[in-house]
Amino acid sequence: MARIVMKFGGTSVADLDRIRHVAAFVRREADQGHSVVATVSAMAGETNRLVALCEEAGPPDPALDVRGVEYDAVVSSGEQVTSALLALVLQKQGYRARSWQGWQIPLQTDSAHGRARIQDIPPQNLSDAIDQGEIAIVAGFQGIAKADRIATLGRGGSDTTAVALAASLQADRCDIYTDVDGVYSTDPRITKQAHRQDRLTYEEMLEMASLGAKVLQTRSVELAMAYGVNLRVLSSFVAPDALNPGTVICDEEEVLEQKIVSAVTLSRDESRISLLAVPDEPGRAAHIFSLLAEHGVNVDMIIQSPARTSGANISFTLPASDLDHAVPYLESAKALIGYDRLVADRDIVKVSVIGVGMRSHTGVASTMFNTLAERKINIHNISTSEIKISVLIDAEYAELAVRALHQAYGLDKGVA
Amino acid sequence: MARIVMKFGGTSVADLDRIRHVAAFVRREADQGHSVVATVSAMAGETNRLVALCEEAGPPDPALDVRGVEYDAVVSSGEQVTSALLALVLQKQGYRARSWQGWQIPLQTDSAHGRARIQDIPPQNLSDAIDQGEIAIVAGFQGIAKADRIATLGRGGSDTTAVALAASLQADRCDIYTDVDGVYSTDPRITKQAHRQDRLTYEEMLEMASLGAKVLQTRSVELAMAYGVNLRVLSSFVAPDALNPGTVICDEEEVLEQKIVSAVTLSRDESRISLLAVPDEPGRAAHIFSLLAEHGVNVDMIIQSPARTSGANISFTLPASDLDHAVPYLESAKALIGYDRLVADRDIVKVSVIGVGMRSHTGVASTMFNTLAERKINIHNISTSEIKISVLIDAEYAELAVRALHQAYGLDKGVA
Repeated sequence: MARIVMKFGGTSVADLDRIRHVAAFVRREADQGHSVVATVSAMAGETNRLVALCEEAGPPDPALDVRGVEYDAVVSSGEQVTSALLALVLQKQGYRARSWQGWQIPLQTDSAHGRARIQDIPPQNLSDAIDQGEIAIVAGFQGIAKADRIATLGRGGSDTTAVALAASLQADRCDIYTDVDGVYSTDPRITKQAHRQDRLTYEEMLEMASLGAKVLQTRSVELAMAYGVNLRVLSSFVAPDALNPGTVICDEEEVLEQKIVSAVTLSRDESRISLLAVPDEPGRAAHIFSLLAEHGVNVDMIIQSPARTSGANISFTLPASDLDHAVPYLESAKALIGYDRLVADRDIVKVSVIGVGMRSHTGVASTMFNTLAERKINIHNISTSEIKISVLIDAEYAELAVRALHQAYGLDKGVA
Repeated sequence: MARIVMKFGGTSVADLDRIRHVAAFVRREADQGHSVVATVSAMAGETNRLVALCEEAGPPDPALDVRGVEYDAVVSSGEQVTSALLALVLQKQGYRARSWQGWQIPLQTDSAHGRARIQDIPPQNLSDAIDQGEIAIVAGFQGIAKADRIATLGRGGSDTTAVALAASLQADRCDIYTDVDGVYSTDPRITKQAHRQDRLTYEEMLEMASLGAKVLQTRSVELAMAYGVNLRVLSSFVAPDALNPGTVICDEEEVLEQKIVSAVTLSRDESRISLLAVPDEPGRAAHIFSLLAEHGVNVDMIIQSPARTSGANISFTLPASDLDHAVPYLESAKALIGYDRLVADRDIVKVSVIGVGMRSHTGVASTMFNTLAERKINIHNISTSEIKISVLIDAEYAELAVRALHQAYGLDKGVA
């Protein structure tokens, strides 16, 4: 008999029919004699409705030290409702089940309301309940901060709740049920050759999450890696008794058939700013990036190259959603920085190849560059990590590049 | 500087505009230096939405010992949202305010989920907060039962929350804001001569509440009477600085200008069952009313009279909503009870006159009977208490009777 943590996202509990469907997955584990903790998100759309109410009431004011506390009390109610409804459905079906709110567990967080981090989950209360055969339905996304206030973990926080519960309860499995049947080698909307991966390493999943694959929240993967949680992504949109292997996220040693590259990702939320002819003096670059950091702009790839006339061209990428926010600060600091011209560009995307196999294999980068060169795709910027190579290219080549790379690294279906 | 408890019902917090309006009432008290605790209901319609979700999930099963616990977790979320939104609005307006859920206070209840009774409210936490100048916004209708589970107080429970808070905090005033400007001498939809009462005694208000005046929940009045809470009913649908005296509910000694009769009430939720020719033997009546009590039917006025042929006719009133529930039980026990015929009647109403002055004045009943007799209104049943006389009459005479009695007891406007 195992301990199993299950997590169901907003689309999986969108209405009572879907909640009843999800209950069947929970019953299936319980019927096999497992101890079950299931954590749920708010019904799809509910969090947006609650956030809109808060915004109508007035955005939290940074000048107040209670920033976000009341927002959290409002928004956390969505998960409260879903958790109790799922418990009610299970009771109605003859199972012993109860809902657990963050404060009842208690799931302790810091006081960064709206984006709180989990500090501790004393396992006693939940352990006692599930050891006695009761199914525990935990409201995801929420915990309790100091002074007994409700705190939420930020968007996607229910993934983190699930992994943290699995770590605290030393669960045998943490199954994240979602609206796709696993993690794919690339976006199936771009190429039909994309295939579900049986296994991925934590590191690969982490790179994929931070490169915009929305299937798991980055923090939940970090936490799973830190505590060695046996994580799996699978579908809640199939019959409960269907074959549903999903994708297992695990340690490198547990990935038997290792590919050099496991995934090709595409991020469209990219933009680029180039500052032309910046005087070639110490401190200019520092000035630019301090200014942006001060205003909360997340800069990614940076390239500095000699300008045609004098000085240097400094070019960097940032999320497309930050572009309109960043440009005015740079323009108002034009004299101070001393650049000649600012060029902003939205029509770019980032394509990345990810794989732990890169560590021990050479030639991954040259395959990437050759493949793109063959298609006459110009590379603007390059950045790498130990297990990832990202390139910045013109948006019009996005799908072409993904398909070409997916094939080049042998990821197409039916290829070994 | 006084301690003031304020309560705002569902229509008073129906949307953000109304919540902002309510905030103005709260600010007004705070600006005068008072310590303020405001308790709120769910936004109008929200509780019904949440109850519907629970009913779709499956009605609570009496066979389960966790009956209603999950229902309470769902339904209490409505007040959680409103309390936090009002706190947010006040913060945005530069006031120190925070929301309090039942479990944070803690407002301790018994474990009769869905209709829990308040057991204790340790005043320390709220006292500390308001003494430091923070406005406390309390989620109404909810508390915490044993094992840290959320419990709700039943429909209208926010009135009870307000009065219990006032008792616990020894508040100087408990102001119940609603969508009418006070308690009327009778329903203003029946006669334009109805007038708002300046003062009513607890006993009068209690009779009015149990006779169907929906302005205050019966339990809240009982509690106010037991603890001597200085209660007031007033409107939230006027400008915050408007003259808004409302109706004060207080001890008899504090009602200066006492009328013999203060109010005429009409209850339409009445029906009558007559069992004809019940054998005149000991135990028959006991059998009838035990049967009804077992099935949760609330019987009110009972009359037994000799039948034309032999035995007795037993006739009693019950809420109209219980009639269809009660009749089958009586019909299936026909042989046991031994009656000849069952007659059910829905077209009846109960008209009552209420006033503490009755205790010291004679002739109140005869005025009532004479007034009705003059209008040729036949009285089916009569019941009395120390401060109330109720008669059962045909529904078609309902408004005529109310208007005639309102005038007869000098309650019409402009009459002393």
